[in-house]
Amino acid sequence: MKRILIIGIGAGDPDHLTLQAAKAMARADVFFVLDKGEAKDDLIRLRRTLIEAHAEAPYRVVEAGDPERDRTAAAYGAAVDDWRSRRARICERLVQDELADGQTGAFLVWGDPGLYDSTLAIVEEILARGAVHFDYEVIPGISSVAALAARHRVSLTQVGRPVHVTTGRRLAEDGPTADDLVVMLDAHTAFAGLDGDFHIYWGAYVGTPDEILVEGPVPEVTDRIRDLRAEARHRKGWIMDTYLLRRLR
Amino acid sequence: MKRILIIGIGAGDPDHLTLQAAKAMARADVFFVLDKGEAKDDLIRLRRTLIEAHAEAPYRVVEAGDPERDRTAAAYGAAVDDWRSRRARICERLVQDELADGQTGAFLVWGDPGLYDSTLAIVEEILARGAVHFDYEVIPGISSVAALAARHRVSLTQVGRPVHVTTGRRLAEDGPTADDLVVMLDAHTAFAGLDGDFHIYWGAYVGTPDEILVEGPVPEVTDRIRDLRAEARHRKGWIMDTYLLRRLR
Ligand SMILES: C[S@@+](CC[C@H](N)C(=O)[O-])C[C@H]1O[C@@H](n2cnc3c(N)ncnc32)[C@H](O)[C@@H]1O
Ligand SMILES: C[S@@+](CC[C@H](N)C(=O)[O-])C[C@H]1O[C@@H](n2cnc3c(N)ncnc32)[C@H](O)[C@@H]1O
Repeated sequence: MKRILIIGIGAGDPDHLTLQAAKAMARADVFFVLDKGEAKDDLIRLRRTLIEAHAEAPYRVVEAGDPERDRTAAAYGAAVDDWRSRRARICERLVQDELADGQTGAFLVWGDPGLYDSTLAIVEEILARGAVHFDYEVIPGISSVAALAARHRVSLTQVGRPVHVTTGRRLAEDGPTADDLVVMLDAHTAFAGLDGDFHIYWGAYVGTPDEILVEGPVPEVTDRIRDLRAEARHRKGWIMDTYLLRRLR
Repeated sequence: MKRILIIGIGAGDPDHLTLQAAKAMARADVFFVLDKGEAKDDLIRLRRTLIEAHAEAPYRVVEAGDPERDRTAAAYGAAVDDWRSRRARICERLVQDELADGQTGAFLVWGDPGLYDSTLAIVEEILARGAVHFDYEVIPGISSVAALAARHRVSLTQVGRPVHVTTGRRLAEDGPTADDLVVMLDAHTAFAGLDGDFHIYWGAYVGTPDEILVEGPVPEVTDRIRDLRAEARHRKGWIMDTYLLRRLR
């Protein structure tokens, strides 16, 4: 039997790694690294740092191209599904060709594997296709959401109240569905047009040396966030930002 | 200046600890441990294990009684606020009397400090009272939500869709507000009376040797969860469970 480990590695700080994840990395014979568009250099660098620090020889690192995703597609879900299927086929081949029976392969997943990440769906799709068999295990990681809240020293939840985790697209479409909202995957600063009085706790590249944090009432900090975001995105070629919105009372 | 570290320690597995949290523990001179009702023995045991493994001598452990909380109070929020204020006064005294200038004190927080935890609010309340001054820092932790998802090998989110994190009380009052819901702090298996077709991923004592996991369509597994829950709660004297509800499509 082959074994696959899906390991959450945290959201940018190598010290986000858990002891459980470090031990899992030490068990792996093969690390699968997929490219990730523009952000790939930084992301791959973190993965390499972690592998060098925690993997135990002998081990191999196998890199594979990530399929291009049609980011202009009107049907976002369909584009993701298609990209995911192509990615599943690439991963299937890797597990088939690069992992021997009895060996353990590892996918290092940004943040927590349970939050807006496709690795679990890909692994399930590979198993459903039936061409290759393996056991798999998931190791949780510090999500960018937990990292953001910690850096702002703010709680995501208020006593007895819900917090909604959503995407920039959804926020733009649905508006604020709760008094406390975490927004991820927002390419268009959807908080700017928000109905209602909100405080924002915004962070980009949280946990990395490039970290930027801004907080304040939305109308007061919107321009500053927009400027910082545009400048950073231009300078680095990519950006990852997340924010918590909290309705003012 | 005094320094306080609010350290997320994960949801039950000592290996949930991050490298960042382990390093923070090594910097602490004093660990503050508050009792936690019935669950205290197990919870304090985990904290002790972590302190023995990661603290660096010389250090001290200071224990203090946790104020009793009025769990029968009709106004849940008010009862929590009152309990929190009494807790803040206890902590204030600890920081005042047990931590010298230049020293670092640590609060070890179950799971992630950003999720339904009062430590951040308590620290802010102490600072607002103004009797004692200190810097503080927050270290994120693996939440019970991330741990639950990993053990069930399931994603909390679906492509481009939100996930709502809420409490048992809220679920009972508001019903299902999204297709994907995480429910915490549920003393009454609120999922049982749910409108709509949901799959449940339920876990108790996740990450600990007592871990129990059940998943399935709600109508099919409700009785089993109820029985397991009642039996475990009776045997151990306390229970902590969390679940993900996913609408069937
Ligand atoms: C594909 S999702 C992956 C999320 C990841 N699994 C997690 O747990 O954080 C990518 C989104 O996560 C958020 N994100 C990831 N890392 C981040 C970081 N270091 N700082 C701020 N946001 C981050 C951004 O919202 C980004 O658009
Ligand atoms: C006061 S909240 C603290 C949450 C914690 N800060 C976290 O990040 O998980 C307590 C609730 O967390 C959940 N919980 C905490 N630890 C758990 C565990 N090991 N297994 C299942 N649920 C847990 C339960 O829903 C419990 O009612």
